[in-house]
Amino acid sequence: MGRSRCADVVLRRDVAVIGAGHSVFGERNLSPKALFTEAFFEATESVDNGFDAEAIGEAYVGSLGFGGGQLGNLSSFVVAEGPAKNIPARRVENACASSGFAFRDAYLAVKSGLVDVALAGGVERMSGLTREHQRFWLGVSGDTLWERLAGVTFAGVYGLMAARHMHEYGTTKEQLARVAVKNHRFGAKNPKAQFQKEVTLEQCVNAPRVADPLGVYDCCSTTDGATVVLLARADVAKKFTDTPVWVVGSGAATDTLATHDRESLTRLDATAKAAKSAFQQSGLEPKQVNVAEVHDCFTIAELLALEDLGFCAKGQGGRFTEDGQSDRGGAVTVNPSGGLKAKGHPLGATGTSQVAEIYHQLRGEVPPERQAPDAEFGLAHNVGGSGATCTVHLFAR
Amino acid sequence: MGRSRCADVVLRRDVAVIGAGHSVFGERNLSPKALFTEAFFEATESVDNGFDAEAIGEAYVGSLGFGGGQLGNLSSFVVAEGPAKNIPARRVENACASSGFAFRDAYLAVKSGLVDVALAGGVERMSGLTREHQRFWLGVSGDTLWERLAGVTFAGVYGLMAARHMHEYGTTKEQLARVAVKNHRFGAKNPKAQFQKEVTLEQCVNAPRVADPLGVYDCCSTTDGATVVLLARADVAKKFTDTPVWVVGSGAATDTLATHDRESLTRLDATAKAAKSAFQQSGLEPKQVNVAEVHDCFTIAELLALEDLGFCAKGQGGRFTEDGQSDRGGAVTVNPSGGLKAKGHPLGATGTSQVAEIYHQLRGEVPPERQAPDAEFGLAHNVGGSGATCTVHLFAR
Repeated sequence: MGRSRCADVVLRRDVAVIGAGHSVFGERNLSPKALFTEAFFEATESVDNGFDAEAIGEAYVGSLGFGGGQLGNLSSFVVAEGPAKNIPARRVENACASSGFAFRDAYLAVKSGLVDVALAGGVERMSGLTREHQRFWLGVSGDTLWERLAGVTFAGVYGLMAARHMHEYGTTKEQLARVAVKNHRFGAKNPKAQFQKEVTLEQCVNAPRVADPLGVYDCCSTTDGATVVLLARADVAKKFTDTPVWVVGSGAATDTLATHDRESLTRLDATAKAAKSAFQQSGLEPKQVNVAEVHDCFTIAELLALEDLGFCAKGQGGRFTEDGQSDRGGAVTVNPSGGLKAKGHPLGATGTSQVAEIYHQLRGEVPPERQAPDAEFGLAHNVGGSGATCTVHLFAR
Repeated sequence: MGRSRCADVVLRRDVAVIGAGHSVFGERNLSPKALFTEAFFEATESVDNGFDAEAIGEAYVGSLGFGGGQLGNLSSFVVAEGPAKNIPARRVENACASSGFAFRDAYLAVKSGLVDVALAGGVERMSGLTREHQRFWLGVSGDTLWERLAGVTFAGVYGLMAARHMHEYGTTKEQLARVAVKNHRFGAKNPKAQFQKEVTLEQCVNAPRVADPLGVYDCCSTTDGATVVLLARADVAKKFTDTPVWVVGSGAATDTLATHDRESLTRLDATAKAAKSAFQQSGLEPKQVNVAEVHDCFTIAELLALEDLGFCAKGQGGRFTEDGQSDRGGAVTVNPSGGLKAKGHPLGATGTSQVAEIYHQLRGEVPPERQAPDAEFGLAHNVGGSGATCTVHLFAR
């Protein structure tokens, strides 16, 4: 269906992704610089026709700064001292949407005409945090005054969203669990994922509670990891590869940090606004998207994303999932990488991890069990906090 | 001289600064959000023909995140909950060059054609830090492994640079002190400055040592403050003001964090590379610049900047200063705001503070004692750490 409608749309193919690198996610016991370097070299070596790091004109590094002694000037730490000395680089921090925004800024830089090739990436080390780190930093991306200091964790906030979604729309724990079952099935086939094993519906529903109605399998894990993607202007991109993946829409938005300041607990306005902006820019419609990586930090977050991105009507995320519409072979293949849920969530590295997956999906180079069929249009959706910041990007092959 | 040569250069006037806001710098006892809001409203109210915050399409907030409970998602905290809800916003962190990079990214966003009006700003609260903050965070922008953990403070690093500059070029303590005397004289006339009083050469030279050869008047203070500037594309800018200030060059670069990894202790390569890039883009030459705000976190840093930006030859910064060439009436008026030295240095807010001063200078609206004569071309130079990150921007009226 996507393809028959494609003829109606004139897509602007002026900025492309030309390479992607992705560290293994998990407890890596490596420094942020080592993690970033792993992703960096995989990205530069992935470029079809060869690539010299000196071609990079600008670098955007998403990170909250966890896990390394170098809090300030992190971008210099991982870029200038690494393989790309003197490239203008900066850290972009928007909580768990850090590298979604890093990607948007790299896209704008290339689109400006001043930069031929830009790097967007992210890095986080979440294992081995000291007690001081945990006390001081975990939860810093949600609202501090009204939520964190009152003891509401992220699982708590999303638990409230899930309970409200159940109340308003009749969503069930089984429907939530189906998100976890699907994403772990995909993750089991992703050698970069932290959790490479399947889970059953029964395991999920009966798992220990974290923040009712969310059990342990409804929550993603934070982990170590780094990701890097390379963007280039159209004329430059064609030198590097015959099969670039085009960025055809970029949307972003913010919202209040505290959920009580929002109109609804079952809708992320930042997602809806970012999606609207990206779809308008591209001319595409949600039903044309074949494959999407969405921000499933909790299973309820994937349901909200399905609705707020326009893949299904508000309140229908549970049913859409139950009917297999978000699975391979359904209306849109959602989180074929395993998502945050199975792949793990290295905060600042997640946004460009999603872009990397869409890049490989649209090039048709993903193992068959995870490959979205006939993938022509892709979407990446990255959320910071409980919806305070969001980016949505649309891609075409 | 600047003007006679101006005819040779065809400047691209496609992005302009159309407004600037600047909180009072000092011990303010205000939250980062309150500080940011002060600068925000001054910026929007400064626009000549009126301005509605809804015109802003994108926001870039420079900050290290000091002084507020909201470490993650800070951009949402100060923007989305403030007067500009839902604007795509992100925090840009490059140590003390955070808002220099925020400005560069806002410039690239407007230049991309996707954003009509962008906000670049910065905020920091440095007073009232807890002991935990001080222990954990101060110094985080320099090299952690080889410098900070070994006990070398920023004053220590710049002290080494000063000693080496004296050794190589015969620079004197008196020449360093003249930077402080000049900048405090300017600061005494700036109602936004933290220190509004003059100092004498004798006071500076005889002041208690901080890190020999640097005394207390050779060092800037960290302080509370926020700054905001508004950028617009040419066609849009003309609606808002008849006297925009054009951004005619943007350069940025990185370098290693640790000074021992660099070729020289008396040169900041990131400054030289960023300047080269900005001058090449604009077609201007250093001698055409009438007024410059440079990153004088220490007096030696102003001398290095004079040299690395090309205002004088390497090693001649002290002589250039002694001869009054960096003072009002000299070759280039340097730091007429008072600089970091007298105005104070709220880390993430300093880069756009410099832009705000150049904006007012080129519009000729600065009190006469600080106004650079016939200012036509301006420069802003922002440094992160001890030279690991740097932006240089060139402006024309």
